[in-house]
Amino acid sequence: MKGSCVVLQSGGPTCVINASLYGVIKQAQIENDITNVYGSLNGIEGLINDNLIDLNLEEEKEIEYLKTTPSAILGSSRHKLPKDYNDETYVKIFNTFKKHNIRYFFLIGGNDSMDTANKMAEYFASSDYECKIMGVPKTIDNDLDVTDHTPGYGSAIKFISNICAEIAIDVECYKKGKVTIIEIMGRDAGWLTAGSKLASLTDHGPDLIYVPELPFDVEEFLDKVSEVYSRKKNAIVAISEGIRDKDGNYILNTLGKETTKDTFGHAYLGGVAAALANEVTKKTGLPSRSIELNLPQRCASHITSLTDINESINCGKEAVKKAVAGLTGHMVIMKRVSTNPYQISFESKDLHEIANKVKFFPLEWVKNGCDISDEFINYALPLINKEHKTKYVNGIVKFSSIKSLIK
Amino acid sequence: MKGSCVVLQSGGPTCVINASLYGVIKQAQIENDITNVYGSLNGIEGLINDNLIDLNLEEEKEIEYLKTTPSAILGSSRHKLPKDYNDETYVKIFNTFKKHNIRYFFLIGGNDSMDTANKMAEYFASSDYECKIMGVPKTIDNDLDVTDHTPGYGSAIKFISNICAEIAIDVECYKKGKVTIIEIMGRDAGWLTAGSKLASLTDHGPDLIYVPELPFDVEEFLDKVSEVYSRKKNAIVAISEGIRDKDGNYILNTLGKETTKDTFGHAYLGGVAAALANEVTKKTGLPSRSIELNLPQRCASHITSLTDINESINCGKEAVKKAVAGLTGHMVIMKRVSTNPYQISFESKDLHEIANKVKFFPLEWVKNGCDISDEFINYALPLINKEHKTKYVNGIVKFSSIKSLIK
Repeated sequence: MKGSCVVLQSGGPTCVINASLYGVIKQAQIENDITNVYGSLNGIEGLINDNLIDLNLEEEKEIEYLKTTPSAILGSSRHKLPKDYNDETYVKIFNTFKKHNIRYFFLIGGNDSMDTANKMAEYFASSDYECKIMGVPKTIDNDLDVTDHTPGYGSAIKFISNICAEIAIDVECYKKGKVTIIEIMGRDAGWLTAGSKLASLTDHGPDLIYVPELPFDVEEFLDKVSEVYSRKKNAIVAISEGIRDKDGNYILNTLGKETTKDTFGHAYLGGVAAALANEVTKKTGLPSRSIELNLPQRCASHITSLTDINESINCGKEAVKKAVAGLTGHMVIMKRVSTNPYQISFESKDLHEIANKVKFFPLEWVKNGCDISDEFINYALPLINKEHKTKYVNGIVKFSSIKSLIK
Repeated sequence: MKGSCVVLQSGGPTCVINASLYGVIKQAQIENDITNVYGSLNGIEGLINDNLIDLNLEEEKEIEYLKTTPSAILGSSRHKLPKDYNDETYVKIFNTFKKHNIRYFFLIGGNDSMDTANKMAEYFASSDYECKIMGVPKTIDNDLDVTDHTPGYGSAIKFISNICAEIAIDVECYKKGKVTIIEIMGRDAGWLTAGSKLASLTDHGPDLIYVPELPFDVEEFLDKVSEVYSRKKNAIVAISEGIRDKDGNYILNTLGKETTKDTFGHAYLGGVAAALANEVTKKTGLPSRSIELNLPQRCASHITSLTDINESINCGKEAVKKAVAGLTGHMVIMKRVSTNPYQISFESKDLHEIANKVKFFPLEWVKNGCDISDEFINYALPLINKEHKTKYVNGIVKFSSIKSLIK
């Protein structure tokens, strides 16, 4: 059916969430059924408040730069839709849709956001207003169920693995080094932390890797670190921010640090490497340092994976194609056809099967509780392959800027 | 005079200290007066213990990779030479020199290391053993006196400015953001922290920048941060790890954190952004987060400045040329001939004028106590210009590896 489309970005940004936006825009612009391409500002809030921009008015070159611009250019949101479909929030969204004759809706987001897409799909399914709702996956965490991997993950572990290799070769330059603890994102799933293993392909990488799927024992850790250090006079450790003890308590908390929670009830973590480094020196006397990789894991666009960019673009394009073909209430997924040569196909899954479910790092890919197996390396290497050529102006990265607003 | 040369690396590594090593090796290999090219392992320790490698035995391609390999491939050291030239340390060094007929000595290092080079020059000047001693500057801190800038600085601020731009555009994606405090290296000098200003050329950069040359007042800072946040619903702050109060106390310490000291008596800093973010939330109620850029500032070789690499190579080459021409007890320096077009010349300065002296960030380039002027932008932009093409294998950076050892 003919009508406008609207696209929005939601949740934590990544290096490639704008590449998916690029894919949606480019495909929507060539579909005959799609008359206008709107962007909703600040996620679902733009729909509630009728705060849209007309993406067809943007300059072509700014659209091109989207492919390599980090952050969510339309603005993001952590707004949670109410469970009650009679809530006035839905009336406001409905009015925005009617006003602009929006018949296609694309949501680029992660776990929590797919819950939003699902609610939107259910809401419109129960109304007599026809609208196709499609989710486009994104999350550096790689913890979305049913897809081989998520757009954003490849670039995140390209940064993580390369920076871990660079840190490792750096700290190895002294005869007597320190215990260096690198803290990597991933509240519940160890996918990002496992990515540090790829650094070992340079012969410079972490000696010990701890994912949050296995209980973390501080005493055992101190023994292992001491053993590595006594052998190498150096020890490099990669840990997930979300490591927990056998009772499920965050190590960050057991070491005496407090955490606060976000609107989805998730704890803000960060600082466990510093606390653990402190513990190492206190208990073993070894010199230590901590490095929290922090936000650059999701925004270091100067070292994005070209494979990831291209897949992110294609996920956006596929969402549009499938919606125009009549599909709704689904999210685009990637299936791995083969690893060598690397090949994926773009399919889709019902949003009910995805929302709020976490895909954990496979325990069979963890070796001895503190290392990652070759199976993971085989799985992950194609995802970080190839480099996009960053556009620099005067030595500084060039970002897209999108400005026009309609009311 | 004909003889061998030895080169060593000292102090904290940078992205380009191996590029300078490359320059020394390449120039030494074509000088008729230089018969062998040795590398001293772990800085001055390799000379004391006669632990040298023959760099002429290394594979050509591994030498080429040096240009883009971070860390100090020969190993570094923080060993301090004794003041007393009758100390047996000098006898051991002297024996190593005699054994290998070393007549040229090149030390690639920063402030503290130039003190070592100076002692070596004084020691040999007082002996009847002829040996030319030359220093090759390196330090990300840019705090070496008498040179326009130091090799390593350009790459460090290329990383800092780009990552600050990426962080800024990332955190701006929410309607209501946080106070984000980015901690940048530089114990005494604000050169690195000032580099964050270049991010503003993308229209996404720090709102407030604090160098350690000016006293930092926590209350004033809280007022400024609150003002920025109330205006933008977001505030990005870049601070030097070394910020101090009006009495010279590290803010890190005044906020209740302890520091330890290294062998040169310098405090290990780090953590002031976290402490300050904590203070922001406690005193103003604003949400906050901290990001410590940490070691990647000196080792993120995937985003090195090509200008910096080339200058680092040339500093190494010039040291060799000048030594062969008879100069000793000097360090290579760069003089700026013009900024537009950017042009430098390679000259030299007596080591007595350099060792242990700190070049501070010019106060006249600080605006309102919390911003950096255009004069700095003009000064710094040429240093981060041009990108080297990182060599990746399977998506991971390719490092040089140098293995052969002679005893």
